[in-house]
Amino acid sequence: MSQPGIKVFAPASIGNVGIGFDLMGMALEAPGDEIVARFADEPGIHIARITGAGGKLPTDPEKNTAGKAALAVLRHLGLAEKRGIELELYKKMPFGSGLGSSAASAVAGAMAVNELLKRPLEKKALLRFALEGEAIASGSKHADNVAPSLLGGIVLVRDHESPDVIRLPVPPGLFVAVVYPHITIRTEDARALLKPAVPLALHTQQAGNLAAFVAALYRGDLDLLSRCLDDVIIEPQRAPLIPGFYDVKKAALAAGALGCSISGSGPSVFALCANSLIAEEAGKGMQSVFAKAGIESDLFLSRINMKGAFKF
Amino acid sequence: MSQPGIKVFAPASIGNVGIGFDLMGMALEAPGDEIVARFADEPGIHIARITGAGGKLPTDPEKNTAGKAALAVLRHLGLAEKRGIELELYKKMPFGSGLGSSAASAVAGAMAVNELLKRPLEKKALLRFALEGEAIASGSKHADNVAPSLLGGIVLVRDHESPDVIRLPVPPGLFVAVVYPHITIRTEDARALLKPAVPLALHTQQAGNLAAFVAALYRGDLDLLSRCLDDVIIEPQRAPLIPGFYDVKKAALAAGALGCSISGSGPSVFALCANSLIAEEAGKGMQSVFAKAGIESDLFLSRINMKGAFKF
Repeated sequence: MSQPGIKVFAPASIGNVGIGFDLMGMALEAPGDEIVARFADEPGIHIARITGAGGKLPTDPEKNTAGKAALAVLRHLGLAEKRGIELELYKKMPFGSGLGSSAASAVAGAMAVNELLKRPLEKKALLRFALEGEAIASGSKHADNVAPSLLGGIVLVRDHESPDVIRLPVPPGLFVAVVYPHITIRTEDARALLKPAVPLALHTQQAGNLAAFVAALYRGDLDLLSRCLDDVIIEPQRAPLIPGFYDVKKAALAAGALGCSISGSGPSVFALCANSLIAEEAGKGMQSVFAKAGIESDLFLSRINMKGAFKF
Repeated sequence: MSQPGIKVFAPASIGNVGIGFDLMGMALEAPGDEIVARFADEPGIHIARITGAGGKLPTDPEKNTAGKAALAVLRHLGLAEKRGIELELYKKMPFGSGLGSSAASAVAGAMAVNELLKRPLEKKALLRFALEGEAIASGSKHADNVAPSLLGGIVLVRDHESPDVIRLPVPPGLFVAVVYPHITIRTEDARALLKPAVPLALHTQQAGNLAAFVAALYRGDLDLLSRCLDDVIIEPQRAPLIPGFYDVKKAALAAGALGCSISGSGPSVFALCANSLIAEEAGKGMQSVFAKAGIESDLFLSRINMKGAFKF
């Protein structure tokens, strides 16, 4: 308690980015989670405090995404029986919003241990430990939120297990408006409703859009990028979970957004925009559609976070 | 008959490149088709001669892929009633090999008219006319052979109708070995056997591999490129059409190929390699497996053709 400790931040992220179901994510600058870490006498990871979670998160480190990720790092370093670390988790982003809340906590947990120990591991090496934390929340290793929250930018996940992730270039100016409507969608429900098979023609269309989206990022071609942002597989199946989704999307596109879809498994809706002014207009437009339906919402405006998680 | 005329060449191409079913193709330097074009007195397109086709191709320009593409250009220019053009088609590549034979003819037909008329159209603008020719052979507009044959390089086809094609960068040195075993697969049969739906998990895996393949080309990252070349949807369904396919593939990989799969709808098998020496080894290895099964084959070794079709 007496020691000063270190503080880390891990950002929210947009999973899937529409066309990249289970394959892509992009980091926001805010919101995100903070963790304070300091050495403790008793070996192992101890969660001393959690705020902003409404008492819903366990403090047992084996059952907590941040705690588990922190433990995974400590164990990898062979220090779990030797060093004690105490964590305070300040959740500063909404739960169940589709913005990668559990991924941010897991990344912050792994980062916190590594930073407190003066970086024995490279940042990218933390990915697999953060994934162990994330697996507690999602039931399996999913890097499409964890990788961008850790590394920043827009990240393609070729394989979650290895993991094999590719940080893609981001055209300058790219801005995101994310609207989180205050409705509840359970990730499990959003997954369960997905049909187990995809018509071959839709597979081809979606794979082509994703591949061309990657090319658009490398070329900095926003026209192409906009043409690619058309999720023909997941969005049509999940849209019914979000009241007025298609009107919300229409409002974003009318404001000039390059594309608009569901963030992760929802209910947040994101609009990718060529600049901050368009993002602001798109965000307001989306919020006003929700408001007309009597749904309160939060708006987050952010450029793509190129830094990912950091110590501050 | 007295006029000298011009000569064009359009190359063979590898459709799909395994993971990019209906989405990607790459051009070879050889083989390919040649067309000689010269002005004729009677308006319209006239096919004066076809060699190398064993009498299997119609000379009616409306029913011939090269003729139809040529007509489409002439009509677009408003000259179909005014100018007469005579074509001689020299097919210099095997039919039904999965190497884009009809696409090469269609591209050559469109190129020939444009070159004879001293390039009223940009090369890329010929794409949609060549597609009209190709549609005669395949029943619908498919740009995954036409686009690389015309433009060269490795081409991603986001949309066949518009068409929306993206020429991808090619890492230097990349070489292809293509083995054409002398067996017959009808494109219609190869299409008909494909299951109409894809398990969601395989869609994700394949789309991730294709997107990462695009990133690998931009990064010049051959290790990543190699990890991506794993077609989990189409290859397993079509492999039974090619006797010994998996042994052929094993031979290519044992020789150091980055990846190996079926070219287009087969029966040709391609191996993508980091250089010409590996390609040569891979090619010989693949041929010897076919030979052991009593199947004769042709081997084509080629770098990626970056130029596409040309006048010579």
